[in-house]
Amino acid sequence: IVELWKNVKRVTVSAWEMGRSDPRKIIFSAKMGVALILISLLIFLKQPFQDVGRYSVWAILTVVVVFEFSIGATLSKGLNRGLGTLSAGGLALAMGMLSKLAGEWEEIVIMVTIFIIGFCATYAKLYPTMKAYEYGFRVFLITYCYIIVSGYRTGEFFHTATNRFLLIALGAAVSVGVNVCIYPIWAGEDLHNLVAKNFTGVATSLEGVVNNYLNCIEYERVPSKILTYQASDDVVYSGYRSAVESTSTEDALMSFAVWEPPHGRYRMLRYPWKNYVKVSGALRHCAFMVMAMHGCILSEIQAPAEKRQVFRNELKKVGSEAAKVLRELGDKVKKMEKLGEEDILFEVHEAAEELQQRIDKKSFLLVNADLWEIGNRPRNENDSQDLLNMDEESHFLEYKSLSEAVLDLRSVRVPKSWEETVAADIINPANVTDEKYFRKQTSWPAHISFQADAIMTKQEESKTYESASSLTLATFTSLLIEFVARLQNLVDSFEELGEKAKFKDPLEQQETV
Amino acid sequence: IVELWKNVKRVTVSAWEMGRSDPRKIIFSAKMGVALILISLLIFLKQPFQDVGRYSVWAILTVVVVFEFSIGATLSKGLNRGLGTLSAGGLALAMGMLSKLAGEWEEIVIMVTIFIIGFCATYAKLYPTMKAYEYGFRVFLITYCYIIVSGYRTGEFFHTATNRFLLIALGAAVSVGVNVCIYPIWAGEDLHNLVAKNFTGVATSLEGVVNNYLNCIEYERVPSKILTYQASDDVVYSGYRSAVESTSTEDALMSFAVWEPPHGRYRMLRYPWKNYVKVSGALRHCAFMVMAMHGCILSEIQAPAEKRQVFRNELKKVGSEAAKVLRELGDKVKKMEKLGEEDILFEVHEAAEELQQRIDKKSFLLVNADLWEIGNRPRNENDSQDLLNMDEESHFLEYKSLSEAVLDLRSVRVPKSWEETVAADIINPANVTDEKYFRKQTSWPAHISFQADAIMTKQEESKTYESASSLTLATFTSLLIEFVARLQNLVDSFEELGEKAKFKDPLEQQETV
Repeated sequence: IVELWKNVKRVTVSAWEMGRSDPRKIIFSAKMGVALILISLLIFLKQPFQDVGRYSVWAILTVVVVFEFSIGATLSKGLNRGLGTLSAGGLALAMGMLSKLAGEWEEIVIMVTIFIIGFCATYAKLYPTMKAYEYGFRVFLITYCYIIVSGYRTGEFFHTATNRFLLIALGAAVSVGVNVCIYPIWAGEDLHNLVAKNFTGVATSLEGVVNNYLNCIEYERVPSKILTYQASDDVVYSGYRSAVESTSTEDALMSFAVWEPPHGRYRMLRYPWKNYVKVSGALRHCAFMVMAMHGCILSEIQAPAEKRQVFRNELKKVGSEAAKVLRELGDKVKKMEKLGEEDILFEVHEAAEELQQRIDKKSFLLVNADLWEIGNRPRNENDSQDLLNMDEESHFLEYKSLSEAVLDLRSVRVPKSWEETVAADIINPANVTDEKYFRKQTSWPAHISFQADAIMTKQEESKTYESASSLTLATFTSLLIEFVARLQNLVDSFEELGEKAKFKDPLEQQETV
Repeated sequence: IVELWKNVKRVTVSAWEMGRSDPRKIIFSAKMGVALILISLLIFLKQPFQDVGRYSVWAILTVVVVFEFSIGATLSKGLNRGLGTLSAGGLALAMGMLSKLAGEWEEIVIMVTIFIIGFCATYAKLYPTMKAYEYGFRVFLITYCYIIVSGYRTGEFFHTATNRFLLIALGAAVSVGVNVCIYPIWAGEDLHNLVAKNFTGVATSLEGVVNNYLNCIEYERVPSKILTYQASDDVVYSGYRSAVESTSTEDALMSFAVWEPPHGRYRMLRYPWKNYVKVSGALRHCAFMVMAMHGCILSEIQAPAEKRQVFRNELKKVGSEAAKVLRELGDKVKKMEKLGEEDILFEVHEAAEELQQRIDKKSFLLVNADLWEIGNRPRNENDSQDLLNMDEESHFLEYKSLSEAVLDLRSVRVPKSWEETVAADIINPANVTDEKYFRKQTSWPAHISFQADAIMTKQEESKTYESASSLTLATFTSLLIEFVARLQNLVDSFEELGEKAKFKDPLEQQETV
């Protein structure tokens, strides 16, 4: 009993939480209750009409089935249901008359028509473009079978058909009425908010990625949820993931939103909902770059912290400017304002260019000159020492890069012990038999240790990794710059949306004030 | 009439096409027809029982609603419906008895209970984890209202409830029977095939990306569908897009597959369908890298073709080896085989390392030494000439990088004309007023031309872009290497799947042969 009481308490708490976080759900449930009361009230009141009571089930059924969360969904379902019933009713009446003519073959004719209609309707609803009307086909089929069968039983085709249709219309009217009149929930508004929210999510992710990268925050152990692309509560990750994953939600909301009449802030026939989805798609195109940048953090091969610091200010500036642009665009989407006169991208382009120039000047940091084939340019260590004290750290880096490369995706062991194992392996190449053990432990440099038959080779390879790790810095930077380049595309689709949806012009507004 | 005839012809053709590409759809439609005939047959036969005929609608309704494409979906809907009806029936009976006790307040009590039940059921079904049972709640609500209302009218609570339940059970039995016995369509099998197909898709994309990159195939005009992440028929793009986008399909199929009994090749209770989704997620994690590489092709800033050729063989080898690994894994998933003894990743790791070493040796190609701050190392042009005849081409490259940077996302104009405009702008800085014109035309270097007040600056910037364009080559390579690194994760999750799903061991098979 204590157990049961706990469960009840838990359910109550989570129900309360849900209600608090989205009060619309409570309101919607209450609306559903009101609609049901209304429809049963009608049935009680009209008790003198025997038929209405008898077919009352259709009205109740319609209310329950048609009553959807958003207005658009309710309207589209109601219409589907109405059309399906009407056309099936007509067809069933015609078929019923025909089957009467068939005399003693009546049953067979009915069977055959049921099969044919069932086949055609099911086949048609599987056609991709018909998916939106899936529900209509279902209703069509139900109605047809019902009218044919009950008509056969009672002989009252016409009566059944009209009664059924009237009660379904009644049910649909009540649901739509209640849904629209009491605190309407619009799919279009949801879509609008979703798109605006995605902007914030990507902006947060972008800032997080850049900061984590600069502060060299690494994942001790990358959550396996990220590796298999499942939802996770990592802030950086969930920001862009929700933007990337919202495709299907957006499509669903759009398909409902197009059914909705002009309302609230969307006073316009044929409101361009499609363009919201398009803006969101352009945002997604940017989000993929954030994703790739996040990949640089998740990666095993990491650029050394010292080198990242060289570009710290520039990277940070680009990141924050880009996030600012995203936030501003998101805000404009939310407020439904057009862009101002000044170029919103000016500052971020400026910052990106500074970053590019900086990279250019310091690009020697990204490569390993020792191995260049143009051998007549010996590396002057003193120069680099001036800049970074690389000489002192070079020994450290050599190991660092290897140990970082070992930051295995599963990282079941501390890197330290790996280094020891590698060392042991090089001294004693007979260890190679131990293959299974290695394969489980490391992902990337595994087979290198098998090749390594001389310490010489190993050192060269360790340098290879050093330069590989530095190149990831170049990658990160390129991706960030590409992100900035993609912003233009986003701004373009935003402007198209602003044009089509007749967003307010901030300049005109100021004038009128 | 000609118009109508054309339409009819078009519809027929597309229907035929659909049937040919997926014959299961035809079979499914025929099954639907058979199930409908069976259920109406039962109703005809049992005509002596008046009640059965009267409530026949429930059986028909159940068949139409429960009959879904895959077995898993049918079973889960059938069970939802059964449970919903049963529990609602019980509750309604109890409430009906209670309301009788209320005497003259009966109507009010009924109304209140309808409201409360409607509210609770609707609220519960909005709870995220309850989404799978959404249909059950709906049926619950319908049943409750129907039994209460019709019970009130006729006073036969018990009679109505049992009749309804029996007929729904009959309908569900017929649908499940027909669906399972005649050519069953399993959601699990669909899931299995989808995952295997994703492997091929990503492999094709990867090869396509690497080849396009090496052959310097650029998009004259990037399809705006790619920029807004909509479906497009670009082969490279659709390959990874379908893998990335299949998340929701996979989740849906999995939720159905878990309902299916052991069958065919999946003879095992609690078959690990979840792991298929996990493998697919790991594949998606790899696909994001392909996506980022594709981004390098889509980008405005492109590495010069000559430099790409330097790494041609290595890039190509890594690309084809990685694609081979993907294909092999996909094949293994399809055939349900475990991996062999040898390390499937050995060759691709080897190739990746060669690429890395090559990059290391040639990394001077990626940077622009002229701008290095360590000024005492003047660039020896002759050396590079030995390698690439860079000296001769340097003038060309200088323009090339700029003109490539102009390969605007929308590229409404030929790059040529842009260069001319830039030149004009530099000579005559007063042109800056023409801002709108510029903003529409270019995306990336737009504001540079406004800054440019001396040809000197412009040349420096053009070099900046030259080095930026070379760095994208480093980016492409890094991404490819990161892709290879992520393969390990994919192999791991594949092995987990193989373990849990008890895939065949190729070695054991050979022994038994």
